[in-house]
Formats: sequence, structure tokens, C-alpha cells
Amino acid sequence: MMKIDLNCDCGESFGPWVMGDDAGILSHVTSANIACGAHAGDPDVMRLTVRLARDLGVGVGAHPGFPDRQGFGRRTMAMPPAEIETSVLAQIGALYAMARAEKVELTHVKPHGALYNYAAATPPAAQAIARAIAAFSRDLILVGLAGSALIDAGQEAGLRVACEAFADRTYEADGALRSRRLDNALIHDNAQSLDQVISIVTNGYALTLDGRQAPIQADTICLHGDTPGATARAAFLRQGLQKVGIEVMSLARVLG
Amino acid sequence: MMKIDLNCDCGESFGPWVMGDDAGILSHVTSANIACGAHAGDPDVMRLTVRLARDLGVGVGAHPGFPDRQGFGRRTMAMPPAEIETSVLAQIGALYAMARAEKVELTHVKPHGALYNYAAATPPAAQAIARAIAAFSRDLILVGLAGSALIDAGQEAGLRVACEAFADRTYEADGALRSRRLDNALIHDNAQSLDQVISIVTNGYALTLDGRQAPIQADTICLHGDTPGATARAAFLRQGLQKVGIEVMSLARVLG
Amino acid sequence: MMKIDLNCDCGESFGPWVMGDDAGILSHVTSANIACGAHAGDPDVMRLTVRLARDLGVGVGAHPGFPDRQGFGRRTMAMPPAEIETSVLAQIGALYAMARAEKVELTHVKPHGALYNYAAATPPAAQAIARAIAAFSRDLILVGLAGSALIDAGQEAGLRVACEAFADRTYEADGALRSRRLDNALIHDNAQSLDQVISIVTNGYALTLDGRQAPIQADTICLHGDTPGATARAAFLRQGLQKVGIEVMSLARVLG
Amino acid sequence: MMKIDLNCDCGESFGPWVMGDDAGILSHVTSANIACGAHAGDPDVMRLTVRLARDLGVGVGAHPGFPDRQGFGRRTMAMPPAEIETSVLAQIGALYAMARAEKVELTHVKPHGALYNYAAATPPAAQAIARAIAAFSRDLILVGLAGSALIDAGQEAGLRVACEAFADRTYEADGALRSRRLDNALIHDNAQSLDQVISIVTNGYALTLDGRQAPIQADTICLHGDTPGATARAAFLRQGLQKVGIEVMSLARVLG
Repeated sequence: MMKIDLNCDCGESFGPWVMGDDAGILSHVTSANIACGAHAGDPDVMRLTVRLARDLGVGVGAHPGFPDRQGFGRRTMAMPPAEIETSVLAQIGALYAMARAEKVELTHVKPHGALYNYAAATPPAAQAIARAIAAFSRDLILVGLAGSALIDAGQEAGLRVACEAFADRTYEADGALRSRRLDNALIHDNAQSLDQVISIVTNGYALTLDGRQAPIQADTICLHGDTPGATARAAFLRQGLQKVGIEVMSLARVLG
Repeated sequence: MMKIDLNCDCGESFGPWVMGDDAGILSHVTSANIACGAHAGDPDVMRLTVRLARDLGVGVGAHPGFPDRQGFGRRTMAMPPAEIETSVLAQIGALYAMARAEKVELTHVKPHGALYNYAAATPPAAQAIARAIAAFSRDLILVGLAGSALIDAGQEAGLRVACEAFADRTYEADGALRSRRLDNALIHDNAQSLDQVISIVTNGYALTLDGRQAPIQADTICLHGDTPGATARAAFLRQGLQKVGIEVMSLARVLG
Repeated sequence: MMKIDLNCDCGESFGPWVMGDDAGILSHVTSANIACGAHAGDPDVMRLTVRLARDLGVGVGAHPGFPDRQGFGRRTMAMPPAEIETSVLAQIGALYAMARAEKVELTHVKPHGALYNYAAATPPAAQAIARAIAAFSRDLILVGLAGSALIDAGQEAGLRVACEAFADRTYEADGALRSRRLDNALIHDNAQSLDQVISIVTNGYALTLDGRQAPIQADTICLHGDTPGATARAAFLRQGLQKVGIEVMSLARVLG
Repeated sequence: MMKIDLNCDCGESFGPWVMGDDAGILSHVTSANIACGAHAGDPDVMRLTVRLARDLGVGVGAHPGFPDRQGFGRRTMAMPPAEIETSVLAQIGALYAMARAEKVELTHVKPHGALYNYAAATPPAAQAIARAIAAFSRDLILVGLAGSALIDAGQEAGLRVACEAFADRTYEADGALRSRRLDNALIHDNAQSLDQVISIVTNGYALTLDGRQAPIQADTICLHGDTPGATARAAFLRQGLQKVGIEVMSLARVLG
């Protein structure tokens, strides 16, 4: 049986400021990566989002980022690994408290934005994140970029890891994401996105812009919720996957 | 057997800024109230302080406050109860993550500064704090001002509560703390502090400035760690209590 | 000649989070109250908003608030007057730097949200704000609720003051705003809003819900920019005022 | 006549947390670099420090840093140049407001910590800082590491620049600071510090550890205020310089 998890960042509102349509997109994914109050979110938003995900039957995960609200966790901060570790721990704990209050289990941890990219390429940072997760709970699944240092660090730490691929990004022949600084790095067409995800799940590769096979092993596909049409795209992808016989299910069951 | 817990606020450093002599004062108390990163503390300070308390055999508790670092949680914020509840939950969670990573149990929660005072006098705020604790874990002991709305709220929520009295504050005949705006509100003399604590534990009352009996039921005594001579005072009090046969022990054992 | 200023809070976006349609509403008002990075706004948003207001020929003013982003400056903080004074000073300075870089003069200062309401009712807070403005520049106009302690404090400090009335709030017979906790406190109908503003400017009073005259002296009318239809309402009001011969002009010209 | 300015970072306390002995060290220097509330300081600390510097006759300068209090501005943040520019502008403005309230002129701007080092090595960041200063006032002197990109950027922007050297750091033969990761990067001996400063001012070079001449052109010497013995060291240096006929004076007078 072919199977995949669909995940989405959410809970990224803050105080009076709303971001994204969480209720819309969470209706179509199986894992929610909820901001933990460092780069986005706050205690009220966290709790509401945990409740929303729980009520929609979506897996609840922590989405820690660099502690920089103005920059939304998109500006890399030169934090030593030990500081990354404690920051991630504190963020997991804050979200855990909401999950516990709402009687739902945390299933996974996926770093956000610049921390995700930094950890993908920087083993000491990746290991710090893996240490934080392992110290909190070995039941948590670490979600990271397929083929990255973060996945390596999780495996070395004895964690279950989930490899992530993207529906709306193109790939290079070596399996790396095509840089956003180059043209055609983004996929705007829903049908093309669906084709790429089907190819990744079915064949284990994506097609590059020049038609080569980029090897990608993926347990989960990242959907972006803060772009126009995000909810419709999520619905389209989910239905399209099911139509070709790919079952969309929670991370734990995909890894299971 | 007469018994009492001694508690102290700690972990109140932040980033490069050091506050108090945690290692000194924690050597003489039985419960540590550790700041949770909202009014003071940060993930690094939290983790170090949890480790320090654990190594000294001191009970580890959360010390949530209003989310206002510049004001050190000493400026009341007009937060609706629901926002107090989620803020306290998030703070407990952040500290819990450090405790879990350092393999130690959280024993108690004591609000800080303006939140402590606000909750002592404001039932909806007190109930919000009690709800946050109950939602996280019914094993946590709520520490509040003896005779206050916070103690009432904890009892109504079915929590174990610990009544707190002060070694360095004088009392009025009705059992209320003498206002800091009046003279002689503070006790600077160590022997006088010791006498007051002994009287509270032994007789169930403190003597007011004009010699009347202020009824005080106390499970724990608050020692302040950020004043000059704090460590020496803590040592003096602990030894003085033991000399008269009062056993100093952890909150859980005091509550029995 | 009958004349009035129309003002609007703006620059309330923060980092990745957008609030309001500043370009829309600023096309119809004559004074912009720009958030200063404490309750909303950040250096980038401040600069862009100053530039936008300048390019639209709108007066640029500072809109300081309590330093509480999550609460959007809507939660009163128990700050002593001296701390309010320095906080307001720092906020004016930050916005002033943007105005200076964009070669435009600051014209006014209007406190935001809970600080506005707190200062309206609390003379020491009002005086602290007036002191901050006077210390920075006696050319700045202090905007406050008509008939409030803030207006009194500005006059006592020798500042030019501008009395503010509301287009979308009803009034009581004593000239006070009807409490939001009562029904019919808000005016949702644009024609009714226009009628109220015309009555205030022309007659010096608003009509209460039961038809009495609430005396209101106003130099400027507050328009809210963060509600649906805000831009259309602003355009409707401005055109309606001009149609009856009320000239809409900058604060400095209104005060003459 | 040989002449030099002595500068010191100060105003680095925050809320309840005290850092350094500003009153002590400011008694011995001629320029104060005052934190602006982003990496350290707050409105109250800023105002007190401006007043202190003014009363001691010390030049008042802005000391902007990366907006990261927990990291004290010591963790480089990947901020695009435009964001550095607005952040520096807002910080200058906040301090300017205090200076204006205390009736003293700002004399200079010196970036702090990681921003200082980043700008020293990164022309676009250096140019952003120079643009911020030039946009605010061309009367402000830009202080930067002698021989660095920051000095180049200031000169290109038409600003007056002041080259800074260090009393407590050793130099390499090319004039670069010896890396802190190497041994003997720091000078702990006061007499050795004095000798180095005298050599820089008199000869235009410092001696390297192996006796070579490191060319250094300096208008100002940085003294660190947050180390033990800082005040005594400052007094020793100032007296030692005067003893050999080097006049210690304000930046503006050094630059002539």
C-alpha cells in the first residue's frame, strides 16, 4: 500500500494578528505543525490551534523556531547548539502544556523556517534539536528535510524520523531543493504539484526541470498554508492522491 | 512533629544579566520557585536552575508571572482570566520540559510578584491559575498567600494547596501582610525573622507590631534571595528552626 | 468656516503580520497616528507608514502605547508615571527618526488603546504623557479624548491640544462615550456616523440614544481603520462633510 | 599635540537587572556608548544614563545592536541591510529622545557586539548603518573598528568617522585584532594596556606578540566596563596617558 502524510504549519497568528486559514487547511492535512510562541503564536493561539487540530483528528506537533517574532523565525541567528537545544525544549514544553490541557498527545516536532534550513545543513544544530527531542520524549517523531543533516541527527539519536518533501518546490538532480533564487523554484500549478507528489510517493523520485530523476524518499509532504488558494490546493492534492490509490494518513501510521 | 517548608524564588537571571545567588540560597531551602521565561529567566537559565535545584535535593516548582520582562512581573497587567490561564499553562510547560530533560518531577507552582498579589485578591484570576494547574497535572501543589483567594481557588479546584507566610514581612491583626507603604512593614533583623517563623509554626500566629496575635496557618515560608545577606539569613533561619525542633522538609512531606 | 481633522490609527502591522489597509484609509484622512513599535509596528513598518502618509499629504503623528505586543496595548499595565513618561519618549523618538529620515515633520502625539483610556481618567498618567511630549518638542500637538484628564494635562503643560470625538461611538448626556459593555455603544451605519460628526462640528453636541444633547467640542474625529468597510466609510464621511461645507484639514490648521 | 578619546559601552542594565558600574567608569572616559533598548537598556535606563553622562561631561552616543535581548546582541542575526538600517534608525531615535529631554546633543553612533563585528566585515551591513546615521544627522560621528568596512562605509557616506582601537586586545601584524579563539588575545595587565595605547597614539602602531609593528590609526580607545576592575583600569589608563602628555578629550575635539 502506498501511503503518505500531509503536514502544514499553523498556529502562526499572534495577539491581534491573524495569519493563514488554519481551520480551512487543517481540514485537509493529517499533521499540524503548531508554532510555539517564539517566532509566532502565543499561549492563546497555541491552545486554540491544538484544540482545532484535535477536533479535526489531525496529529499535533510542535513547530519550534528561532526566537525572533519580528523576523518570523526566518532570519538565522548565530545561536550555539546548547542554546538551540534549550530553546527547542522550552518551545516543545509550552506546546505540550496546551496538548496536555486539551487531552491530546504530541506526535512530532518539525523546526521552522531558518531553523529548519540551518539544521538541515549544520550537523551541530541538527544534533542539538535531536537532543532536545530525545530529552523530552523518545515517542516524538522528528520531521526534517529528506536527505538532510537533521534526518541524520535524528537517526543517530535513536529517534523515529520522518522525511519531508515539498509539493510546491522543484528539485535538482541530486535531490536538493532548487534554490529560491533561481527561476522556476516554485510550482504554482496544482496539477503539477499533484504529479510531483504522486511521483515521489510512487517512484521515489521527482522530475527535475530538465527531466532527470531526483531521488526523494518522503514520509510526509509539506503544504504551505499562508499562500492564496492554500486550502483549495490542499483539498485538490488530498483528493488527487486518494484517486490514484495513495492513502493519506498520520505520520505515526506512515512510519508504523 | 512540627514541620515547615522553606521556599525561595530563583532562576531570575536573564541572558547576560545575573540576579541573586541561586547556588547559595538553594543550599538552605527545600523548595525552589523557578522563573519560567515570561517575567524572568530564559531557557538556558531555566535548565541550569532546574539542574542546580535537583542536585541540591530541593523541590522544583514553576514560578509563572505576568509576561513583562522590563517590569519583572511587578506591574499588574489587565489580562482576562482566560489569558492568565494560558500564559500560566505555557510557562509551566516550558519549565516542565527542563525538568523532564533533567529527570526531575515538578512539585509545585507559585505565581510571582504582581500575579501573586493580583490572584490573592481577585477570585477570577485565582481560579484561572488553578484551572491551568489542574489542566496540567493534579499532582502539582499550588502555593499561595495564606488566607487568600488563591488558596480558596486551589481548594475549589481540588488541588493540594500550600499556605505561604513570610519571614521578613510584618502582619496585621487580621492576618494580612502589613502594607509596604507603611513603616515597619519589613523585618530586617534575622533573629526577629526567626522568632516570627517559630511563632507561626508553633503557635499558628505572628505577633503584630502592637503585640496582638495575627492568625497565620503556614505550610511554607518564603525567603527572598535577591537581598544582601540572603544566603546567610537562609542558613540562620534553617538552623534556628531545627534548633527548636521544627523540621524543615519538602512541601510534599509537609502536606503529607 | 467650519473645519475638522480626520485621524486614523495606522502602521499597526508587525513583522510578517498585516493589519488594516493603511493605503486605503490614509487616502481619506488628514492625520495619521503611527504605532511606534511598542504595542504594534516595527522599524520597517514605521518607516513605510511614515513614507506613505507623507506621500499622501497626511500629517504624521506618533501613536505610543503600553509595551505589550501580544495584548496590542489593550491591557492596562500598572506602570508608574515616570515609566510611562520614558516609554512614551522612547516611542516618539523612534518614530521621529523615521520621520527625519523621510524628511517630514511630526505633527502630533495620540496615545493608543488602554494608554489612551487610562490617561483620559488618570491625571498622573496624563501628566506623564504631557511631560514626555513637552520634553521632546513643544511643537507637537497632544490629541486626547475631548473633556478628559489628558486634555487638561496637555493644557497645564502649555501644549497645544486637540480634542477628539468619535464617528462610530455613541455618547451619554454628560459628553462621555457610552460604555462598550452597553448595547448601542457602536454606530455601524455610515449615514448615522456622518450625521453625528456633522452635529458635533456644527452644533457642538452629539445626540444621545434618547435624544438629548451631549456637549462635545472636537478638533479631530477618530476613524477606525481595522474594521470591514473602513476605507469606504472614511471616503463617505469625508465627502459628506465637504458636501455640507465642513472643510477637512490638518490638525495644525484646525487649531489655527 | 597628541590626543585621544576614551569610550565605554554603558546603559546596559535592563529592567531590574544591573550591568556594570556606569557611574564609576564614566568618571574616566570621554565618550559614552549608550545601549538603545534593543539588545540592552530600556527607556528608564537610557534616560538615567544620558543624564549621568551629561552630568559627568561625557559625550553621549548611541550604541545600537541586534534586537536580541537574551543574546545581548552577541548573536549575529541574518538581517537584510534594509532591516539593519531601520533598526539602527529606530534605536538612534529612541536614545535621541532621551538626549533631547535631557538637553544634550548626541555626538556619535557605535554599533554593538555582533553588529559591530558583522559591519566591520560586511560592506552591505556597514553601508546600511552609515545610511541610517546619515539619514538621521550628518553631525553624528560613526565609530568603528580601525581599518574596517564600517569606517569605509562611513567615509563613502560623507560622515565623520572615528577609528577605534582596543586597550585590552592584542593585534596581528596586519593590524587585525587577534582572534579570541587564540591564546593571548586579551591583555589583562594594566601597564601593558597602557603601553599599547601609548604606542598606538604616539607611534601609530601596536606591538604584536612576536614583536612586530601592527599599524593602527586610532581616534578613540574602547574600554570595557563590565569586567572586574574596569573602573580602576580606566582611571589608570587615563592618568597614564596624561602623564606622557597625551591629552584625553572628546571625539569631536579629537577629530577636530
